[in-house]
Amino acid sequence: MRNISLLGATGSIGQQTLEVIRQHPEQFKLVAMSFGQNVELGLKAIHEFRPKFVAVQSKEVYEKIRYDCPENIDVKFGEEALVEAATYYQADLLINAVIGSVGLIPTLRAIEAKKDIAVANKETLVTAGHIVTEFAERHQVNLLPVDSEHSAIFQCLQGEKQKNVERLILTASGGSFRDKTREELVDVTIEQALNHPNWSMGAKITIDSATMMNKGLEVIEAHWLFSIPYDKIEVLLHKESIIHSMVEFHDGSVIAQLGTPDMKVPIQYALTYPDRFPLQTTERLNLAKVGILHFQTVDFERFRCLKFAYESGKIGGTMPTVLNAANEEAVDAFLKGSISFLAIEELIEQALLKHEAIKNPSLEEILEVDQITRAFVQSLI
Amino acid sequence: MRNISLLGATGSIGQQTLEVIRQHPEQFKLVAMSFGQNVELGLKAIHEFRPKFVAVQSKEVYEKIRYDCPENIDVKFGEEALVEAATYYQADLLINAVIGSVGLIPTLRAIEAKKDIAVANKETLVTAGHIVTEFAERHQVNLLPVDSEHSAIFQCLQGEKQKNVERLILTASGGSFRDKTREELVDVTIEQALNHPNWSMGAKITIDSATMMNKGLEVIEAHWLFSIPYDKIEVLLHKESIIHSMVEFHDGSVIAQLGTPDMKVPIQYALTYPDRFPLQTTERLNLAKVGILHFQTVDFERFRCLKFAYESGKIGGTMPTVLNAANEEAVDAFLKGSISFLAIEELIEQALLKHEAIKNPSLEEILEVDQITRAFVQSLI
Repeated sequence: MRNISLLGATGSIGQQTLEVIRQHPEQFKLVAMSFGQNVELGLKAIHEFRPKFVAVQSKEVYEKIRYDCPENIDVKFGEEALVEAATYYQADLLINAVIGSVGLIPTLRAIEAKKDIAVANKETLVTAGHIVTEFAERHQVNLLPVDSEHSAIFQCLQGEKQKNVERLILTASGGSFRDKTREELVDVTIEQALNHPNWSMGAKITIDSATMMNKGLEVIEAHWLFSIPYDKIEVLLHKESIIHSMVEFHDGSVIAQLGTPDMKVPIQYALTYPDRFPLQTTERLNLAKVGILHFQTVDFERFRCLKFAYESGKIGGTMPTVLNAANEEAVDAFLKGSISFLAIEELIEQALLKHEAIKNPSLEEILEVDQITRAFVQSLI
Repeated sequence: MRNISLLGATGSIGQQTLEVIRQHPEQFKLVAMSFGQNVELGLKAIHEFRPKFVAVQSKEVYEKIRYDCPENIDVKFGEEALVEAATYYQADLLINAVIGSVGLIPTLRAIEAKKDIAVANKETLVTAGHIVTEFAERHQVNLLPVDSEHSAIFQCLQGEKQKNVERLILTASGGSFRDKTREELVDVTIEQALNHPNWSMGAKITIDSATMMNKGLEVIEAHWLFSIPYDKIEVLLHKESIIHSMVEFHDGSVIAQLGTPDMKVPIQYALTYPDRFPLQTTERLNLAKVGILHFQTVDFERFRCLKFAYESGKIGGTMPTVLNAANEEAVDAFLKGSISFLAIEELIEQALLKHEAIKNPSLEEILEVDQITRAFVQSLI
């Protein structure tokens, strides 16, 4: 039996994590969870899984649910509560599926508390990769990727030696606008951007897919998760999202992980690693039915956010923090209808140009740069 | 330093094995070798690699080379000599790359002598899989696949547990005639059959690819190498031969091994397992350049040899021996111009229909059935 704490239970990854837990009641138990504002889904999860501890985002949400929760469930709100859920004493493993850099502090506290971490919050590694990986090594906890691409690479690396890795190849669907030129992007709408061809995901990550910032964040995440220099990480356009990523070894052999686009597979792998459990409800890959897989190189001028990510990653220090914070603010503004789609990358570029990276930043410096960047981007909107 | 005995040094696999050894003089040493009749290539290998022991097929070949060999090299001929090469006392590992069922006895003797076996002679496992695998287990030696498909599966299984395997997916290029209908096969020539679209291989295996008997033999080989029932082994047409094979696990995750079609990669993996060494001369896989990968189901009526192989494997006992012996004789007759291409499968079918399988046959029974089958097929030609 593995005891699980789940942050972000009502989001897309959170709900699919609950589905995995639901399929294996003998193996997994949800002992703590958090959610933001979705009272309906939150209460549903509380009643079904009966965690011992629940953290919610605000006092307002807390007031809404406290009398609807079973008596023996401890409910709290705010950032302290989020850390309490992340480090809940009975939990063996934390799945951090909150959105954005709010996931950072709970992850670090959970590592200190010796919890294995299933990393579904990529901003944690993007903004503070050097701190998180150093923490994980020091406290000897596993960082288990949940993103389909990183889970793919992690699976491909099983039984292999790091010294033999030649390069990582992250596949990218190209997102909602993969077939559009830059000119055609000028007046795209929020609804068009949210219509991802392959994956059903949250709003933020779907927009990140359309700008390919998502792939850029994944490149930085891969750098930290697998200790690989940026010039050994490639991105390959693969519109079917069937090959989830690959590892090339120095003998020329390439190992790939494939599957239908279903996040439950990487989520469950993080929970069962290094074992695998059956997963019944997933549609199985049938390559004869798929018929054809396409691959092409990525145009860094067409997908400028990807270029920004590589550049930020290579500069390092606080530069990826700026990349991520500026992106979060810009995407938020786009989703609110305040800016155009192409303005997302313009805002990010301006934030990056303005920043001078701090080398080996402390957590405090990272959080400060994060705040300053957000304020700067908001001032431009 | 790994000491290697190589049977079949002048064949396609043998020559590529020598190329791998040539690239890693610090890691590999050829201590024994055999070849059949290619005196020129045989002498070239002897002079370059200076093995301690050389076995050749016949007294005639022996007489041709004995005075051209360096004095300190022990040269012998015949079947006993082949066994002596296979079990050479200094060898750590035997690569058995002879063609046909002549490879069986040397493999068994080498297993008894505690040599790890790199299996490039698939007939060994096809005709006597139950004996070879039982021997390998009893003497605790590794059976390391060299076929690109089985090496792919073997690589995909690293770090994984057998209990989690859902099925093996062997890919098949479809061979020289993959786009032809059965009607169009009636009058194909030897030259057409030998023109494989992807792989440069020996004549026998190239014809086996065109009939898809090669894939059928591989299905039986996979059954024995990986202890997997036949209904969990699938064949998928994939004309680019880029994905070399795959393993599906019970969580829906599929691990695949990919690469350019280059036998040096699986050969070297068998020699370096569980490590990998750099391999410089291989053209690296560039999926963006490949662009498109195709997949389709196999038509068992179009490729009847594949159907025969599944049926023979499922019946078991001596039935795969008949399949293999009949195929060897039929292909030989086709290559000599004695029969038509479609007669290959007709001869095999007749041999299978005539035979009543012996369950759990002894080595003697296998060799007897092999001889009887060959005589029967020859009587039909």
